[in-house]
Formats: sequence, C-alpha cells, structure tokens
Amino acid sequence: MDDAVKKEALRLFTYGLYAVSVRAGERRNAFTANWLSQVSFDPPLVALSVDNTAASLELIREARRFVINVYGAEQRELAGRLGKTLSRSPDKLEGIALGETASGQPFLSETLGWVEVAIEQELPAGDSTLFLGRVVDAGVQRHGEEPLTMRAAGFRHAG
Amino acid sequence: MDDAVKKEALRLFTYGLYAVSVRAGERRNAFTANWLSQVSFDPPLVALSVDNTAASLELIREARRFVINVYGAEQRELAGRLGKTLSRSPDKLEGIALGETASGQPFLSETLGWVEVAIEQELPAGDSTLFLGRVVDAGVQRHGEEPLTMRAAGFRHAG
Repeated sequence: MDDAVKKEALRLFTYGLYAVSVRAGERRNAFTANWLSQVSFDPPLVALSVDNTAASLELIREARRFVINVYGAEQRELAGRLGKTLSRSPDKLEGIALGETASGQPFLSETLGWVEVAIEQELPAGDSTLFLGRVVDAGVQRHGEEPLTMRAAGFRHAG
Repeated sequence: MDDAVKKEALRLFTYGLYAVSVRAGERRNAFTANWLSQVSFDPPLVALSVDNTAASLELIREARRFVINVYGAEQRELAGRLGKTLSRSPDKLEGIALGETASGQPFLSETLGWVEVAIEQELPAGDSTLFLGRVVDAGVQRHGEEPLTMRAAGFRHAG
C-alpha cells in the first residue's frame, strides 16, 4: 500500500467538527474532535475516538461520560482555540459560556446543540481510544443553522 | 430526555456518503453507508457501523474485509440506488464498474477513491454491529473533487 495514496483516500472522508466537553470532580476540559459517529438508532449509541495523548482522556475515563457539542458554521475560531492542547493553552475555556446537564457535565451554550453520552465500552484503537456510549441527554440551542465541517474549516485530521 | 430533541441534536452531526463493497466467495454486494470514521492514524484504523438487518453483514463477517468507496458530489443517484436493500433490488450492482483489490475485494471504479479494511474486531452496538479494522489497501481514482455528503444529498440517517 502506497502511504501517500492511503492518506489521500482517507482525507476524502467527510467530518463535522465538535467540542467534546467533560468534567470529573473539579477538573473540566473541552477539546475539538472530529472522529465520531452515531452507530445505532435504538438504543441511540455514539462512538468517539480520542487520541491517547489527550489531557481529557483521564477525565473521560473518570467521568464515564462526555458531551458532544456541534459547532456552528461560523465557529471556526472557537474550534481552533479548543483544538489546542490544555498544556499549551491552560486558559482555553476562559470566557466560553458553559451550561450543565442534569448529571453535571458541562456543555457549550453557544454551539448548535449537544448530546451527552454515558460510556458503555472502551476499546484500544491504535494511537487512540474508542469510546462507545449511549446518548442519555440532549439539547438544541440554535435551530436550522449549518454545522461547521472539517472541509469548510480547512482543518486536517485524517490520513 | 426529550426524544424529539435527541433526534434533532443527532441530526446536526455531519456525515459523508460511501458505498461499502464486499465479496465472500461468489457472493458480492455494495450498500450505501454513512456511520463510519477513521479512529487511529498509526496504525490507520477505521470503524464502520452496519445495521443488523443488512444483507451484507454475513458477507462482511465471512470476508473479514470490506472496502469503503467515497462517492463524488454528483453521485447522489448511485448512493440512493445502492441504499436499497438487496432483497428489494437484487440487480442493484448491474452496470456498475467494479475493480478488484489485491486481496480480491471489489471496489467501485467510478467513485473518488477507496480504502480496503481488514477487520480486527467486531462489537455489538444496539441495532447495529460495529467493525473496527485496519486500512490495508487504498486507491484514489479522481483527484481534487468534492465528496458527496449526507446534507448535500438530503438523506437522513441519524437521530
């Protein structure tokens, strides 16, 4: 397999851009993610892949939950900001309006909407960890607006 | 959780549209899918969710492989055609140009490109089955063209 061809083929895949937010005890974080998909209607299940070097990995494991927030088409800058690592950008949540789900997980009040996921399974997946979980709560904050996509943002995270 | 809100939130997710093609022995099929994502760079891993009622599920299990073909923006009609079940549309592959990977799996010659995935793990995921596999072969047939998305096609498969 030609590595350049593999990269080019994988970059043809279409992705949205999301903020994954999580709280464990007093610690909370949010980071930009795109490797995720719904995987079942009934029950509603979602899979999310998280880089093994991500600061949020331990928070997600501890919380056993996370929230997927859908960026609006105009939130490219926010997606870039939350795409920085917590160590390089410790104040990255400052000034971002957060709400709280019934279970106490943070969501971003100014995105299009969000789903809260309760983790049912965790799988090693190469350089990442795949979480499979059930949608247990949801909110829609802005109706009928376009979500931000990887392609529109000009971001790259595949290949 | 309000079911209508959950559906609306999940429909904010962004998806591409793909033909998943597979051969097991003399039987082959291709069907339109969107619940998939790359989940690791190194090694390159992909996750794909397949409805438990899909005719191709047994083929995928037998082959232990499948190919993800990326539809081009203009291939909405082909996506709709391959989205029909094999039982309702037994001749749906007729007239579709197919190539063959080194391992003998079929790919669609007129899509943008494809990756062949060797299955490493299979997980029950509600009404579907989640396959986690490694990209073992890839091809790009049309360079620099836009892929078809769920949103552009006006298809619905989430919520």
